[in-house]
Amino acid sequence: MGSFKGHALPGSFFLVAGIWWTAKHSLWYATRRNKNIGSTRLASRASQRRLEIIENSVVVFFSFMGMLLEQFAANGPRLQLYNLGEKHWEDLMNWQHATMYLFFGLAGTVCLIIHTTEAAPLALDRLMLAIAFFNEGFLFFYHLHGRSMLDVHVHQLLLYAIFGGALVAFLEVFHRGNILLELLRCTLTILQGSWFWQIGFTLYPPHGPEWDLTDHSNMMFITMCYSWHLAFAMLVVSVLYCTVSCVVRSRLKRTPPMEMGLLKPRERDPESEDEIL
Amino acid sequence: MGSFKGHALPGSFFLVAGIWWTAKHSLWYATRRNKNIGSTRLASRASQRRLEIIENSVVVFFSFMGMLLEQFAANGPRLQLYNLGEKHWEDLMNWQHATMYLFFGLAGTVCLIIHTTEAAPLALDRLMLAIAFFNEGFLFFYHLHGRSMLDVHVHQLLLYAIFGGALVAFLEVFHRGNILLELLRCTLTILQGSWFWQIGFTLYPPHGPEWDLTDHSNMMFITMCYSWHLAFAMLVVSVLYCTVSCVVRSRLKRTPPMEMGLLKPRERDPESEDEIL
Amino acid sequence: MGSFKGHALPGSFFLVAGIWWTAKHSLWYATRRNKNIGSTRLASRASQRRLEIIENSVVVFFSFMGMLLEQFAANGPRLQLYNLGEKHWEDLMNWQHATMYLFFGLAGTVCLIIHTTEAAPLALDRLMLAIAFFNEGFLFFYHLHGRSMLDVHVHQLLLYAIFGGALVAFLEVFHRGNILLELLRCTLTILQGSWFWQIGFTLYPPHGPEWDLTDHSNMMFITMCYSWHLAFAMLVVSVLYCTVSCVVRSRLKRTPPMEMGLLKPRERDPESEDEIL
Amino acid sequence: MGSFKGHALPGSFFLVAGIWWTAKHSLWYATRRNKNIGSTRLASRASQRRLEIIENSVVVFFSFMGMLLEQFAANGPRLQLYNLGEKHWEDLMNWQHATMYLFFGLAGTVCLIIHTTEAAPLALDRLMLAIAFFNEGFLFFYHLHGRSMLDVHVHQLLLYAIFGGALVAFLEVFHRGNILLELLRCTLTILQGSWFWQIGFTLYPPHGPEWDLTDHSNMMFITMCYSWHLAFAMLVVSVLYCTVSCVVRSRLKRTPPMEMGLLKPRERDPESEDEIL
Repeated sequence: MGSFKGHALPGSFFLVAGIWWTAKHSLWYATRRNKNIGSTRLASRASQRRLEIIENSVVVFFSFMGMLLEQFAANGPRLQLYNLGEKHWEDLMNWQHATMYLFFGLAGTVCLIIHTTEAAPLALDRLMLAIAFFNEGFLFFYHLHGRSMLDVHVHQLLLYAIFGGALVAFLEVFHRGNILLELLRCTLTILQGSWFWQIGFTLYPPHGPEWDLTDHSNMMFITMCYSWHLAFAMLVVSVLYCTVSCVVRSRLKRTPPMEMGLLKPRERDPESEDEIL
Repeated sequence: MGSFKGHALPGSFFLVAGIWWTAKHSLWYATRRNKNIGSTRLASRASQRRLEIIENSVVVFFSFMGMLLEQFAANGPRLQLYNLGEKHWEDLMNWQHATMYLFFGLAGTVCLIIHTTEAAPLALDRLMLAIAFFNEGFLFFYHLHGRSMLDVHVHQLLLYAIFGGALVAFLEVFHRGNILLELLRCTLTILQGSWFWQIGFTLYPPHGPEWDLTDHSNMMFITMCYSWHLAFAMLVVSVLYCTVSCVVRSRLKRTPPMEMGLLKPRERDPESEDEIL
Repeated sequence: MGSFKGHALPGSFFLVAGIWWTAKHSLWYATRRNKNIGSTRLASRASQRRLEIIENSVVVFFSFMGMLLEQFAANGPRLQLYNLGEKHWEDLMNWQHATMYLFFGLAGTVCLIIHTTEAAPLALDRLMLAIAFFNEGFLFFYHLHGRSMLDVHVHQLLLYAIFGGALVAFLEVFHRGNILLELLRCTLTILQGSWFWQIGFTLYPPHGPEWDLTDHSNMMFITMCYSWHLAFAMLVVSVLYCTVSCVVRSRLKRTPPMEMGLLKPRERDPESEDEIL
Repeated sequence: MGSFKGHALPGSFFLVAGIWWTAKHSLWYATRRNKNIGSTRLASRASQRRLEIIENSVVVFFSFMGMLLEQFAANGPRLQLYNLGEKHWEDLMNWQHATMYLFFGLAGTVCLIIHTTEAAPLALDRLMLAIAFFNEGFLFFYHLHGRSMLDVHVHQLLLYAIFGGALVAFLEVFHRGNILLELLRCTLTILQGSWFWQIGFTLYPPHGPEWDLTDHSNMMFITMCYSWHLAFAMLVVSVLYCTVSCVVRSRLKRTPPMEMGLLKPRERDPESEDEIL
């Protein structure tokens, strides 16, 4: 996966996931807040469940595709783990990436089961997501041996977003439906996605000159660049959140904004989405 | 304990403990969820307490046996700590392992007292378990001086499962009866058990060739292998959980699944098991 | 910013911010506690919101000024990031400092929007503050490469205050209006401010002899000095808190202190300020 | 303070503090649990407050004495911080120890004020204690430069107890009156005290041979020894707790143990002691 495409692909997936989650959570939050003025017709319990099922089917599908691609693409190991002839492990990188996909696939499968059968508590979906993120970060953490300084550094910065996402998802097990945690998770997911693109551009510039991977001022710039990506992710999430909120309100068109302000029980909103999900 | 058996033995204990806890917590959770349709006859308060007492008696017994074995087995120190003649410590490894058993024995003893006399709050059993796990990880952490790279690495990976288990048990002090935390603890315990087996097979292969303990690609494989063990542990826990849930439901045979879905107060289940224990 | 003024300036800002927050939170807490004896006339909901808007306007203004200064002051990069001619990054220090200001500016902007439009949950202001502090600490953390021992050490000590502030602000997302967390954040902010001054005096003594930046006993003294700054910050916060409390009580002048003690529901005070904000 | 007495003295203080706290918290917990059968005559609200005032007066007194001793004992700095003549810092060790005492003195002073005037929320006493412990650990952490291996190791082990105590005290800010956290804090305080004695015996053996400070097997023994100190501390705390519980029950002599078991609302005890304090 040491290529531009190899970083752009997962980057795009995380970007799409982050944006999709932002829209979803913003919509549900707006729905919950404006419940008293009849917004539940916008997002009923049944439609929410249907959405979850579609989302997780897509996750499972792409995880499965990812695993297949890692195994059977041009230079993949084709399910062969150990080369007995030459006595070495076969394409460990591909196997590691396939393992990452596996955990996201598992998370998706479990979510599917939760939302179709009610066999387990809802919060399990966040726990599985936290484990999937943690596993991704765990594998990346031991991934960096013997690379050049800048290469190690950009991947270490990625770990902030990954482990941050895992931690927030774990906190959501206990504070389910807290919009701030949800949006923070979305922000970190978008940050992860855009940073994957940045890694691709930095380590494997598709055109233009190579970066000096041992220059310390490059490292300082990259660190700052990470902050900008974070600011960018925050911007994307807030623009999306505001757009969704406005659309929901305007489609309700019942009460003028002032009165709404008085009606809605701010901060006393139900902390959990369970009562409507 | 530098032998295959020395790792397989504790591994088996943790595997059994993890599987047993999964079954126990799944059963109690299913009982709590279906309380309104009369499931309490399956697991009454008295029978739960009896189970706890039996479980902890077994823990105390095996901890005591473990300590005795470490002391009086073939090459044990036989309670002699310091060899005054040759001026060196006597079999520190055995003493350290005996210390680990001691803390699990203490945890078991305290649980016995809690469940027989009500002298202390119930949550103390999780706190003692957290301390026992922490102590195990603490001793392992300072255990690794001067070993070869792969040896250190496999034991470091073990620490994730041990300290993870300690942390989850500590969280359970505040969120007692949260099925997700309980199952997560079970998963980490099974992971610990199966990883002990893996360490045995890696460092002391009972047949077949030795591993190259300084090869970096071996280290990368082992890291990924840890993820697979985690996935395996998650699989075992979920299969057990589903089996137990189904058995409980089918033995109740009162209401069709659909109606049950409407009846049971999902996520509003009592967070603590105290009211029935 | 490697100058005395470059450290004194942010130090002064943080000192002012810490003192201002202490006064604000003490006033609101005193108001909440004495609500039953009519103190709400001192700090009504509307006036509190007005205060927040003024405060955050000031924050946004100074953040913007800070960014402009970093860019266009004497030796600033003037928005030029990369010098294509000489192939090096242009004044990365200034860009990093401007990035820090950017995040505080973002936090201020978001707070302004929250308190004027009710578009998002109130707790978002603390989350933004936590992110701004975290970003500041994150940039400082990767800022220290290749400096002398004492220089690294004084900046590392600064990180305690910064990350401590970020953590406390994050906890406030879940425990909003907890006066202890608020005062702890104020203390850490004042500590940060006074420590910036100390760094200025230590690394760039305006008059008097230079410090030996490699002497270990200097490092030990500086560590202890940090504790004294913490004690000083705690003193400032407690004096301010007591003053504000006394002033509020004396202006109410309704009930003698003894009776007040009986009336007020200690520790049962509303944990969140939302009901009056 | 590099002497046997210099470690035995603080060790004794922490031992006494740990034992005293255990007795106090056990008594109050037993009182709360048996409230319905009239136990409040054993520990009324007024007598509890008196106890707190006496305890904190003693803390303040000894902190003050400690500071004076560190300054004016045989080889103390006598309030002189910098030797201008010889251009070196004067007895930094003594100053550091005095700083540690200062923070415990501050914590005691604040507790005195809280329990006499009701000026601040009760939980502030735990926050101050957490800060005092943290400051102690912080100073020890930067205290160890250039010492021999075993010396560093025994002081690092001490940090577990210190930072553990700080963390538990901080958690108590949010879970006040949780008997498990209180007893855990007592355990860690006793561990700290007994470990100070162990450090004294290890580094400055009063009689008998010196330890080899660079021998790795000594280090392994000391690590295990720390676990034994922990087990010992747990034993002391549980014996004390049981004794106090039994004494309280026997002095009440109202209801036979069985009936008490039925009466008392286990685990539903008031989580906070505020209602009786």
